[in-house]
Amino acid sequence: METRLQQQLAFLVEVDKMKTILRRTLLMDGSRRENDAEHSWHFALAALLLQEYAGDGVDMFRVLKMALIHDLVEIYAGDTYAFDEEGNLDKALREQQAADQLFCMLPAEQNVALRSLWEEFDAMATPDSRYAAAIDRLQPFLSNWQTGGRSWKEHGVCKNQIYRRMDMVRQALPALWPFVEEVVREAVNNGTVLP
Amino acid sequence: METRLQQQLAFLVEVDKMKTILRRTLLMDGSRRENDAEHSWHFALAALLLQEYAGDGVDMFRVLKMALIHDLVEIYAGDTYAFDEEGNLDKALREQQAADQLFCMLPAEQNVALRSLWEEFDAMATPDSRYAAAIDRLQPFLSNWQTGGRSWKEHGVCKNQIYRRMDMVRQALPALWPFVEEVVREAVNNGTVLP
Repeated sequence: METRLQQQLAFLVEVDKMKTILRRTLLMDGSRRENDAEHSWHFALAALLLQEYAGDGVDMFRVLKMALIHDLVEIYAGDTYAFDEEGNLDKALREQQAADQLFCMLPAEQNVALRSLWEEFDAMATPDSRYAAAIDRLQPFLSNWQTGGRSWKEHGVCKNQIYRRMDMVRQALPALWPFVEEVVREAVNNGTVLP
Repeated sequence: METRLQQQLAFLVEVDKMKTILRRTLLMDGSRRENDAEHSWHFALAALLLQEYAGDGVDMFRVLKMALIHDLVEIYAGDTYAFDEEGNLDKALREQQAADQLFCMLPAEQNVALRSLWEEFDAMATPDSRYAAAIDRLQPFLSNWQTGGRSWKEHGVCKNQIYRRMDMVRQALPALWPFVEEVVREAVNNGTVLP
């Protein structure tokens, strides 16, 4: 029988694997792909830095917790590229199974608390989760901005796909929307993104 | 003249370099060295998971913010290995200069807020910063635990150096101290750490 502390330490060891889950996003210097741990840290810091643009009633402490845990399920479910339509068909099921497996390592009430926070993030229906989802989309967008849209180009992404993906920024972080539009307009103009 | 948003986005681009600052700590699978972005994420998540062992009056929201920003100065100052006595002689000066350079990229009141939070972390004199410092030390300790003390062995670290380094765990996270003692005892017994 494991003690609470043993369960918690085993969980902290297991989640080290986040550092090996690669995303399609590149580091901003273009040197290699980013991993989930790096993305989660950058997302949390961006959420904090841009909090003045969040809507009323956004609780930044809860947003930071969402940032830290939002991709943990990818340890078992893998990263599904935002623009991979086939991979996104069974993403929800794969991630629910991964959540069952991962959060169960924790003491019961921590399992319930983190699972429910992750599900809230995933549903994007509360002010906190909508702001969090907007930042989650903005972070890789910044990388594409800095690398001349390299991951968009490599995957043949078109303008409407980006606008669909970024729509939560328009809704929950509208101050950033003109910036998004300008970056996409330029990417279309120079042929990086399909019109 | 940059707008606030332009300053904030430039800062978020600059801190991407955290993903390229390598620490001496290894990933728990031993495959490569960890970087500052990965460490900061893991530190924040560990602080959250272990909060029941924090002393009274620890504000977890502030601790998470410290975790996210505590190593940003290493973008310019580099990572100084905890057991590098020479490197630690001028660490404070190098990091103050780096803080001047980095936080100045932000709008004035964000510069002041983050700079002061970082200085509080660095001074380890408040309940929040003492708990944060304990987790900052625990996180690489977990890696040594999982990799058979590989980074201790590679750098010829001895028992007393580890105990000095980990003393903030004894003070601010005493529930973890028996675990620390047991891991060190085993590492000495099997010759990984010098007695």
